Amino acid sequence: MNRLLLIGLLLLTHLTFADDGYRLWLKYDRLTDATVRSGYARSAQFIAVSGSSPVLKSATNELQLGLQGLLGTTVPTLPSAGTRQGGIVLTVGVSGADANELNEEGYRIVKRQGNILVMGKTDVGVLYGTFALLRQLQTGQSVDAINLVSSPKVKLRMLNHWDNPNGTIERGYAGGSLWKWSELPETIDPRYKDYARANASLGINGTVVNNVNASARMLTGEYLQKVAALAGVMRPYGIKVYLSVYFAAPKTLGGLKTSDPLDPEVRKWWTDKTAEIHRYIPDFGGFLVKANSEGEPGPQDYGRTHVDGANMLAAAMKPFPGVVIWRAFVYKADPTGDRFKAAYEEFTPFDGQFDPKVIVQVKNGPIDFQPREPFSPLFGAMPKTPLGIEFQLTQEYLGFATHLVYEAPVFKECLESDTYAAGKGSTVARVIDGSLHGYSQTLMAGVANTGSDRNWTGNPLAQANWYAFGRIAWDHTLTSAAIADEWVNMTLTRQPQAVSHVRAMLLRSRDIYVDYNAPIGLSRPWTGVHFAPEPWQNKSPRPDWTAVYYHRADSVGLGFDRTATGSNALAQYRPEVRRQWENVDNCPLPYLLWFHHVPWTKQLSTGRTLWDELCTRFYTSADSVRWLQQEWTLAKPALDPVLYTDVAGRLATQHREAIWWRDAWVLYLQEFAKKPVPKPFKQPEQTLDDVKKSVDIYLLR
Amino acid sequence: MNRLLLIGLLLLTHLTFADDGYRLWLKYDRLTDATVRSGYARSAQFIAVSGSSPVLKSATNELQLGLQGLLGTTVPTLPSAGTRQGGIVLTVGVSGADANELNEEGYRIVKRQGNILVMGKTDVGVLYGTFALLRQLQTGQSVDAINLVSSPKVKLRMLNHWDNPNGTIERGYAGGSLWKWSELPETIDPRYKDYARANASLGINGTVVNNVNASARMLTGEYLQKVAALAGVMRPYGIKVYLSVYFAAPKTLGGLKTSDPLDPEVRKWWTDKTAEIHRYIPDFGGFLVKANSEGEPGPQDYGRTHVDGANMLAAAMKPFPGVVIWRAFVYKADPTGDRFKAAYEEFTPFDGQFDPKVIVQVKNGPIDFQPREPFSPLFGAMPKTPLGIEFQLTQEYLGFATHLVYEAPVFKECLESDTYAAGKGSTVARVIDGSLHGYSQTLMAGVANTGSDRNWTGNPLAQANWYAFGRIAWDHTLTSAAIADEWVNMTLTRQPQAVSHVRAMLLRSRDIYVDYNAPIGLSRPWTGVHFAPEPWQNKSPRPDWTAVYYHRADSVGLGFDRTATGSNALAQYRPEVRRQWENVDNCPLPYLLWFHHVPWTKQLSTGRTLWDELCTRFYTSADSVRWLQQEWTLAKPALDPVLYTDVAGRLATQHREAIWWRDAWVLYLQEFAKKPVPKPFKQPEQTLDDVKKSVDIYLLR
Repeated sequence: MNRLLLIGLLLLTHLTFADDGYRLWLKYDRLTDATVRSGYARSAQFIAVSGSSPVLKSATNELQLGLQGLLGTTVPTLPSAGTRQGGIVLTVGVSGADANELNEEGYRIVKRQGNILVMGKTDVGVLYGTFALLRQLQTGQSVDAINLVSSPKVKLRMLNHWDNPNGTIERGYAGGSLWKWSELPETIDPRYKDYARANASLGINGTVVNNVNASARMLTGEYLQKVAALAGVMRPYGIKVYLSVYFAAPKTLGGLKTSDPLDPEVRKWWTDKTAEIHRYIPDFGGFLVKANSEGEPGPQDYGRTHVDGANMLAAAMKPFPGVVIWRAFVYKADPTGDRFKAAYEEFTPFDGQFDPKVIVQVKNGPIDFQPREPFSPLFGAMPKTPLGIEFQLTQEYLGFATHLVYEAPVFKECLESDTYAAGKGSTVARVIDGSLHGYSQTLMAGVANTGSDRNWTGNPLAQANWYAFGRIAWDHTLTSAAIADEWVNMTLTRQPQAVSHVRAMLLRSRDIYVDYNAPIGLSRPWTGVHFAPEPWQNKSPRPDWTAVYYHRADSVGLGFDRTATGSNALAQYRPEVRRQWENVDNCPLPYLLWFHHVPWTKQLSTGRTLWDELCTRFYTSADSVRWLQQEWTLAKPALDPVLYTDVAGRLATQHREAIWWRDAWVLYLQEFAKKPVPKPFKQPEQTLDDVKKSVDIYLLR
Repeated sequence: MNRLLLIGLLLLTHLTFADDGYRLWLKYDRLTDATVRSGYARSAQFIAVSGSSPVLKSATNELQLGLQGLLGTTVPTLPSAGTRQGGIVLTVGVSGADANELNEEGYRIVKRQGNILVMGKTDVGVLYGTFALLRQLQTGQSVDAINLVSSPKVKLRMLNHWDNPNGTIERGYAGGSLWKWSELPETIDPRYKDYARANASLGINGTVVNNVNASARMLTGEYLQKVAALAGVMRPYGIKVYLSVYFAAPKTLGGLKTSDPLDPEVRKWWTDKTAEIHRYIPDFGGFLVKANSEGEPGPQDYGRTHVDGANMLAAAMKPFPGVVIWRAFVYKADPTGDRFKAAYEEFTPFDGQFDPKVIVQVKNGPIDFQPREPFSPLFGAMPKTPLGIEFQLTQEYLGFATHLVYEAPVFKECLESDTYAAGKGSTVARVIDGSLHGYSQTLMAGVANTGSDRNWTGNPLAQANWYAFGRIAWDHTLTSAAIADEWVNMTLTRQPQAVSHVRAMLLRSRDIYVDYNAPIGLSRPWTGVHFAPEPWQNKSPRPDWTAVYYHRADSVGLGFDRTATGSNALAQYRPEVRRQWENVDNCPLPYLLWFHHVPWTKQLSTGRTLWDELCTRFYTSADSVRWLQQEWTLAKPALDPVLYTDVAGRLATQHREAIWWRDAWVLYLQEFAKKPVPKPFKQPEQTLDDVKKSVDIYLLR
């Protein structure tokens, strides 16, 4: 037997030689501490579950899988606990205080009568509770006197996939599309289910499967069959499927002469199409619409408004529970305007005019997912219109799959910003969760960072951003640090020293990135080479697609004057907010160049001039990537070696590219500032022309 | 102990619940027959290897990995066998008859003095012998009196990757690019090594890492560092890296005013660039060039010839052992011409003028990887110019990742075709292996079907095409059936009944596909919707990019007259070949419509009219996909369940799409033939307009 065991273990070693990241945070590796393990085992001798809905089945299966992995034992399931003790009981239906305290998707986990009860008003509440219980075990918490209660603060917690039918992903850095359109509906990739499990473990309950720059083909019967197949996989995990729609579909698909939202034939087309979708997907989640934005068609093509467009779709959706999510990401090509102000100007006049089924989805900042933005002035400015928030998980402006940026602080920073819409404490979070204005529909969306790469997110550490988004969408009061702790413990290691090194990396990573990429309130939403430094870029089909439009470097200084002497975008904020930012002398540095054109020689609160402060940030942050590398090395003994090597490689790329960004900015801005790089930093070894040449490579086919 | 074992096995079950296809044919799962296993174990008690080259290390590591997996034991390595017996001895250096019989890469495996000797003249020969020995074990052959000798018949056996720097693959159906350009050179994906192992196991010794529609960026220092990192992974597996080059690079990268191959500055630029490449990659394999083809730049842009262009690059390569591979895939946009004739017309006048370093790479057929083509008339027509052959593994015209087409018969059919260039027996294979014309450089290239999908090829059964290509490139005398047997046994199952079902599927699959897709010599290299039936397509920037250009359907009949009464492309073949095909009354049916415009009512050798024969093919082949499904179901008990389900899904898609092709062709051709569908077949349920609409979906963004 000994020998057979050896063979088994050798085989095991061979087959599992590397952690390929596929399992995400749902790893369920056997707990190494035998005491902990046997403690849990005493509380998990059986699983009792009454009822057999597909969602309950998912919960039961997950619990069995998790317990088998963590404890190494197969736990039997029973239809009821009877008088048994020492098991886990999954129960739909609550009583007493829970009836008031829990919402439809909430759960309570409590030790009662010798068993661990996982309760919810609905089966999906039980599913979420099951994942929460597993998380307790994965992170080594005691369950002897467990008593956890939690309900999601936001109703629609969803991922937006910018996946195209041709298999590519717009702004995707983790391989091709998750969805194998040409193989659907017949071939169901096992990853679809694992995707659903991962989302359900966080409480994500919606997925928009296609790009907001939408293909009309998604609305054909051919593709609806494919989408229905995906919906079939998602349903047992409480996840609804949504579609991005191409507003001109009545013309391109329906053969109509117009897509005018007030045209009766167009309205009928959408009504019929919406009904057809529901024949394929009875629990269809709804539509997501990018209209009259960056060249996409929309109601304005026919002299109509966003309200006309959105309400038409809402009317089509009327017989069904689904919603219409209308994006506020719009901006006109106006050389004299300020793109910052566009969404507010276009949308606030419509407050109160949207159908109750409509949610307006607003990006966290006024521009476009920049490394650091002030919160969008729309939040708090439309009390009669449910506003959802859109974050971007995929690192379009945050270093692709090579730079480490843990995004929980990005999300938190925005959500904790105070809009003062109803006095102090009117945070963006309270706008989004509906508590401030009493929105009935609430929404938090994240543009997914998933792709077909085995480890889902390209950079293994970017899994933390998917995780953090899901957790914050459920409960925005969780701290970035607490979420990091959970994720590292579940995903990478439970060795305390190593956890502490990786946690430190995650928590500092975003500030490091900002400081070499877009410090003190710079932004960089330029086209051209999208991922490379190109501050000199000044040619484009639109003025607001150049770099110089944003940074406004000149011989005097740097930054975009958005005070009353400039574009006065600040006027879109409440006076209390405006006052924080409008004075160049006390505007917090993270926002300084967002709102002010600051002279190079201006002394900042740090005691340095603008130029010296910029240089200090560029140089110290590029050096800080070395610190990230050191921390990672310190954690190495507790990490899977293949995963360690993978991330170490990415950090090396990050260091090389951080210097690239630093040199590009320093050399370019130096031409305006006409000052030397302050000591102890050294003038870059390369010239601006060198950097330009290295960037131009990426303009080649 | 019993309990611990159980835990181990449970864990094992959990971790390896599905065969995800990643391991390809190098599976090394433990042999189930204990007698066989112990027999092998007696012959594999140690591995003796003298020498420590990286290639020998690869061989040793692979042998250890394989034996550990197959036998379940860790086999020690020794620097020499000494007087020991019962081991495997890897030896560089041969004597006696082997010195003559083996070429530089050949191997002998022989039982001698109680050991299994794996010998080669070079370490790479030993590596290939090692994989051959493992194949013997994997397929259950006896090694007691083993005596195998084999040398590759072709010198350069390579994959051509059409991977782009942006991460996409042209005509790729298995996810994104294998190469993570934005993460290189720092991050080395473990799959690069597994890719190298898989290729080395077949004897593939070269890889062109980028698309023939080449980006100039591949020649920048930035990218050469990345390519060098890949070369570092390939080198210990005997694989050289090649680059596709953009002919206009002297202008776009070098800033020169011209890329004229006779311009001294241009020549110097290429000489310098070639030297630079070798500083990064000392054993660089060479260049692959698509010039003046489908819009790519080339020497003709400057009034020069293919010879001028190729010989310039050969001159730049002169100090190094690398080669210049120049593609013959060229055709002008000539509305009155016949694309079939273009390559022959352009290249044969240059025979004897190319530098000895140049190899002209010719696609297997005269058009473009059609489901079935006659062999290219260039084979045998350039006795003084080494011609390499290019096959396409990726299923651009063979049903993407959903249709099953085992391609060994495609390769074999071409290679076994007799060119009669030097009398009977002058097969294409003998042109390619150099034996007919005494070529010093010989080349077989396959356009890769690999991508970032976990299972490498999208359709798990498409792995067989990679396998078959490699095996045939090594030894073109292997039969399609023998290769199928090897692959199925190594990859899917060794249960004899199941092997026989899957083998039958593989061997019939190509004929089934041809019969619903392009029967009796039809072809379909049209643009528009590349993968969908579109025989009506008659608009395009070029006449030879329409469907009607090829099939020439009219009220009289169908097919392209390439006899003396038509384009006379047949005149490009030797008289013996021409005679086989020039007479409409006895031209073999697979080639009939390639060479003749045949009346609908013409009685064929089958006893049916052309129209009835076409319908018979379309209908029976679509029905035959049902047979494929049945065979797969019969093999099910011996197959991994996840893999079974995956392929079953694809076969269902194939059946649906076979009917789509059938209906499209039948309904379209019926408009010309004006005849009913012959009994017992039934008129399609959909109209031609229905089919057109279903195809038009794929023209939408």
